[in-house]
Amino acid sequence: MPQPAVSPVAKPIIVTDPIAIREQVRAAQARGRRVGFVPTMGALHEGHTSLVDRAACECDDVAVSIFVNPTQFGPSEDFSRYPRSLESDIAAVAERGARWVFAPEAESIYPPGWATRVEVEGPARRFEGEIRPGHFSGVATVVCRLLLAVPADEAYFGAKDWQQTLVIRRMVRDLGVPTGITVCPTVREPDGLAMSSRNAYLTAAERSRACGLFESLRLAEQGWLAGETVAVIERAMAHHLAERGVTVDYAAIVDRDTLDPLTDETSPAVALVAGRLGMTRLIDNILLPLRR
Amino acid sequence: MPQPAVSPVAKPIIVTDPIAIREQVRAAQARGRRVGFVPTMGALHEGHTSLVDRAACECDDVAVSIFVNPTQFGPSEDFSRYPRSLESDIAAVAERGARWVFAPEAESIYPPGWATRVEVEGPARRFEGEIRPGHFSGVATVVCRLLLAVPADEAYFGAKDWQQTLVIRRMVRDLGVPTGITVCPTVREPDGLAMSSRNAYLTAAERSRACGLFESLRLAEQGWLAGETVAVIERAMAHHLAERGVTVDYAAIVDRDTLDPLTDETSPAVALVAGRLGMTRLIDNILLPLRR
Repeated sequence: MPQPAVSPVAKPIIVTDPIAIREQVRAAQARGRRVGFVPTMGALHEGHTSLVDRAACECDDVAVSIFVNPTQFGPSEDFSRYPRSLESDIAAVAERGARWVFAPEAESIYPPGWATRVEVEGPARRFEGEIRPGHFSGVATVVCRLLLAVPADEAYFGAKDWQQTLVIRRMVRDLGVPTGITVCPTVREPDGLAMSSRNAYLTAAERSRACGLFESLRLAEQGWLAGETVAVIERAMAHHLAERGVTVDYAAIVDRDTLDPLTDETSPAVALVAGRLGMTRLIDNILLPLRR
Repeated sequence: MPQPAVSPVAKPIIVTDPIAIREQVRAAQARGRRVGFVPTMGALHEGHTSLVDRAACECDDVAVSIFVNPTQFGPSEDFSRYPRSLESDIAAVAERGARWVFAPEAESIYPPGWATRVEVEGPARRFEGEIRPGHFSGVATVVCRLLLAVPADEAYFGAKDWQQTLVIRRMVRDLGVPTGITVCPTVREPDGLAMSSRNAYLTAAERSRACGLFESLRLAEQGWLAGETVAVIERAMAHHLAERGVTVDYAAIVDRDTLDPLTDETSPAVALVAGRLGMTRLIDNILLPLRR
């Protein structure tokens, strides 16, 4: 059967060269177009496509980057087995109307003799920063690099990686990267499990227990609204995770902007959890309602 | 007497806000103007003005920043007594036809809660990097910050700080900062002393001996052309410096691009010296002629 003359979906332009994507984005901006940017590591799910939708809603043109960034993985982590699905990712992004897919080779992001890292302290210190040394340095470095290659007006990140969004906001503010940062709500499966490319690692048995992370966050919210202390709530979260067979890395309620311990239980708070099911490590969080 | 209606020298626009300078530079570029940028720590001398002249020659508009960057000074170094002369600096820059002087407050370069540093390995490791821990991290951080605030087409640096130029080139390449880097020749006093804001620290007796640094570099060049070994030349340099009363930090001949030891004496080389005269630390270098 012949193809229709005009495809119902405009194909995105696939760009691998950082200088080329920069020129195309700048040219669009010079024509007065507002450009949105969604940096991803591919293996796209509804969490990612919700970011593309938000960017498409707020901007004239959207760029999506697909780059599995080696420098944010520890030596014993899952870089090599991280899911890669470039073709279906491009199809998913095309469906949402993105104009560009920026899919660089590692050598163009990290040129020969590469020797520069962006290091963030402050919000990067605790939690993922303690458990994954070098992780946030890799994130800050690649996001800085990507935001210089794709000089968008606004970049979109998911709230699921709450600490990461704080690290990125800090880096962008400190270096004066001229791109706005929008953080979008976590997208969840029907049972509450936060969408993550790593969910694909879970066995069926692990998958059925993985909603324990979200359940522990709901428990935190209930306890918080009932006026319980942070210590009591954190114990209840850890207990619930353990019951669900999740090996707890942390279950904590902290200041949502600094991730420091709460000095005042009326200040804006976030509940954070991280744990392992078999070989798979998952994280999640919710912003707690303001007290009083 | 009335002032002439048109001043012979157009006054530069003094800008303190990083967002404002960015907007003005971008607006000029949008009108098709090529913008050059000379980042300085003030206390301007002929070395600096030669950079402004070069930028003015190659670009339509020139921005000069004046910012004594606290993060590139060690705790026991000369940050507090570093010479500051904003008014005469502005006059010097005005005379060279610069369009903007960007003179930010420290708080706008390092905002409250500042937690981000740009760290460069490679060319930053040896020499100044060893002697001044944290120095190149401060340099890379502030230059990255300044190049994002002043998104010039080309930025101009003096060859006197040769290692610094390598660190900046590395950082710019690795992060994809979209500004070209031009390195301009060192400007010297009649006796060969490299122009430096720190020369103002020298007593008359120290000043008369300070040309020992350049003399040792000339010795290196002669030895190099005569086919002497690196070890022999380095000893002669150190000996001459000591004779001139300079306490030697280093006197070395290394690869001019990596600052690694020369593996092949026909590869492009640089002679580097650093030493102290009383309380004042001076550095200098020359690129050695290619052998054969």
